[in-house]
Amino acid sequence: MGEQIVIIGGGFGGLYAAKRLKHAPVDVTLIDRRNHHLFQPLLYQTATGALSPADIATPLRRLLKDQRNVRVLLGEVVDFDVANKQVILRDGAVGYDKLVVAAGSGKNYFGNDQWMANAPGLKTVEDATEIRRRILTAFEAAERTTDPGKVRTWLTFVVIGGGPTGVEMAGALAEIAHETLQNEFRNINPSDARIVLVQSGERILPTYAPELSARATAALERLGVEVLTGLRVTDVGDRGVTVSSRAGETYLPSRTVLWTAGVQASPLGQALAAATSAEVDRGGRVIVEPDLSVPGHPDIFVIGDLAHFAHQTGEPLPGVAQVAIQQGRYVAQLIARRRAGKRVSPFFYRDRGNMATIGRGKAVAEIGRLRLSGWLAWQIWAVVHLMYQMDVENRMLVFIQWIWNYLTRKRSALLITDRDQKATNPQAQASLNLITNSGVFLRVSDVREKKSS
Amino acid sequence: MGEQIVIIGGGFGGLYAAKRLKHAPVDVTLIDRRNHHLFQPLLYQTATGALSPADIATPLRRLLKDQRNVRVLLGEVVDFDVANKQVILRDGAVGYDKLVVAAGSGKNYFGNDQWMANAPGLKTVEDATEIRRRILTAFEAAERTTDPGKVRTWLTFVVIGGGPTGVEMAGALAEIAHETLQNEFRNINPSDARIVLVQSGERILPTYAPELSARATAALERLGVEVLTGLRVTDVGDRGVTVSSRAGETYLPSRTVLWTAGVQASPLGQALAAATSAEVDRGGRVIVEPDLSVPGHPDIFVIGDLAHFAHQTGEPLPGVAQVAIQQGRYVAQLIARRRAGKRVSPFFYRDRGNMATIGRGKAVAEIGRLRLSGWLAWQIWAVVHLMYQMDVENRMLVFIQWIWNYLTRKRSALLITDRDQKATNPQAQASLNLITNSGVFLRVSDVREKKSS
Repeated sequence: MGEQIVIIGGGFGGLYAAKRLKHAPVDVTLIDRRNHHLFQPLLYQTATGALSPADIATPLRRLLKDQRNVRVLLGEVVDFDVANKQVILRDGAVGYDKLVVAAGSGKNYFGNDQWMANAPGLKTVEDATEIRRRILTAFEAAERTTDPGKVRTWLTFVVIGGGPTGVEMAGALAEIAHETLQNEFRNINPSDARIVLVQSGERILPTYAPELSARATAALERLGVEVLTGLRVTDVGDRGVTVSSRAGETYLPSRTVLWTAGVQASPLGQALAAATSAEVDRGGRVIVEPDLSVPGHPDIFVIGDLAHFAHQTGEPLPGVAQVAIQQGRYVAQLIARRRAGKRVSPFFYRDRGNMATIGRGKAVAEIGRLRLSGWLAWQIWAVVHLMYQMDVENRMLVFIQWIWNYLTRKRSALLITDRDQKATNPQAQASLNLITNSGVFLRVSDVREKKSS
Repeated sequence: MGEQIVIIGGGFGGLYAAKRLKHAPVDVTLIDRRNHHLFQPLLYQTATGALSPADIATPLRRLLKDQRNVRVLLGEVVDFDVANKQVILRDGAVGYDKLVVAAGSGKNYFGNDQWMANAPGLKTVEDATEIRRRILTAFEAAERTTDPGKVRTWLTFVVIGGGPTGVEMAGALAEIAHETLQNEFRNINPSDARIVLVQSGERILPTYAPELSARATAALERLGVEVLTGLRVTDVGDRGVTVSSRAGETYLPSRTVLWTAGVQASPLGQALAAATSAEVDRGGRVIVEPDLSVPGHPDIFVIGDLAHFAHQTGEPLPGVAQVAIQQGRYVAQLIARRRAGKRVSPFFYRDRGNMATIGRGKAVAEIGRLRLSGWLAWQIWAVVHLMYQMDVENRMLVFIQWIWNYLTRKRSALLITDRDQKATNPQAQASLNLITNSGVFLRVSDVREKKSS
């Protein structure tokens, strides 16, 4: 019986760790709350109807079916029993010899969780279909509203956060309004939509070179996006967002607000810290040793978004897929090499570059000292994001849909599906609740007037 | 200003009626609760993870964007004001000169609506993702259960209803168990799944020739499906189904029951009947005149699943896409011809044949006097179902995925997504509620035992 390796989380970190352990004489248990690995970098494309959920999500069991030393467990980890070397699930426990915690991160509203209902974030497949529903329902509501002020509020979309996800969402929203939905409505012109990107810092994409921030801003503005920087969000309500700058407060009336501003490590970071006396940073990330282990616990590793690793530059590594993948592989190799009695050098991150798309044929990329923008950057972005898709079928489906969407300016998955999937209730029709509950009325008199005009 | 034509429902009947009115000097308003046309004949493939929802659903606005005399209204019709020629929506009203009611049908539990929660039916995209979730969660729960009796109950799937949908669901379930999920689990063998098709009549596919019923039964049995006929369902609980025959009652323990047994016309049929003094049949369908109009109301037409049209054979036409399409086109032509002062002959249904798939490379088809089964029937089925896809992109995506699934025996969309899409709640993890609530426990002792074995 081999050593028991338990990996928590089937994201990039956990999945690459499991795969790299393929030939090690160990037994791996991969635990996730979800049955699928989600290709997060393309999630904004599902939220904006360009791809279906299944195009970017693959069952973990399928990805690992041929690896006989891995079993996948669908379950929720709630705590750690370090003394007895056990992971506590909501409904049971699993023992480990070595533990890899790759539980990732969620949204961070910086203490204002009440904003969540009016400004959903983008982390899961359900987040994406909910955001898609809100975007499409806003256009439907605008079409049915006769009050010009209300139409304007329905057609205003505010994206909070100027990082890659915010930029990608704002660019995609602009394309939906100006291209995808053209000619589909009779009372409104989707091009009248106002898309606002709100960034608290002085420039969007702050981790990129200033030159690329400027080019991204220019590209977004050409697409019709208003890029507002130096604005702090002070309130999010169901009819709009309040932002403040040194010049004072401004209210942006909007029915569709999207939150991409903050990331908070999984609560499992806190639980692990409590169990091991490790320290967490402000974002809830566990501060790890140079070999990614938890101080004083050489058998417990934390990787990916949940890890605070600052040994290389003094700054913690960013929460991106590349870091998680390299850390997952490193920990797997460390486990295998230590078993073989070999020494292992500290983790070293090789930055392969950063990329963000802005829209059709537009992206920015930093690869080493190279700074690219426009068509070439977009091509590289597309190739890289296809390459990293683990599932061949998904790679094929994404590729075909990209080409199709590129040529036709269409989006293939613009469905409004119910928020509450009242699957068993034939009278269910929650898709319209948002409209009905919000007091959008097409009065009999309106109809009669129109008819006689 | 042209004549106002209001069409209720964007299914096959309503959509084909709207499209056929393209060159008529009329203004068309198409009202639907959903923003998409659903290609119902392939819905079972979404319920069984072979296709994504967006592959079989296309926004109505996109399908009708180039037809300038049509506007699409997302809204719910609740009643009719025939005296004032108005359709009453939940939040307004729309006037009409001519009205086409194509509101379709829902599930029918024959007075036992309490069975709904334990035996969902298949009518909407949400139904399909919910059924997919239940099927996949059952295998996950079986993997985590140690009690052999409970494993068996989780691995038993009961499909109620032996019509085309029931046959297709049972066949697809068998393929999932015996092919798709092979090697994905460690504690269970998905092939151990028991799939039961329960039919009340003496044979499945009762509207087909007896010879084809027999071939379908044989094909299902080769796939490992138990075909039980002459059994009436007397109870559906959360742990199983009670069926009775002349020999007595039998209890089938199962955690996953699917309902395809009955169809009930939309409640709008009753509402229309009350408003027009028309008659409805036992299934809630409105009995129409030879020209599909409501008796005494030459300006109101009922088509598709909601219409009871029995003038041709004495028997009402079946609720299939072909009938709805032909009726939609007929009514559109009637409206256009009457405006031009021309006479119109009664509706005449041309039966182009019936087909049902059983599985990979297996189908039965009746085309005129021709009775086909096996590979050729399946090829014809596939071509016909691709041809009738209205959206070119969907046709392409379905085609590619069919070829891929055929070659690899995979299914591309095996996702468990949350039933309650708690998009804004980071702690949401409803996907496991079914397991947790049902008392499936992996006890610490179980794990320890396994570990030391």
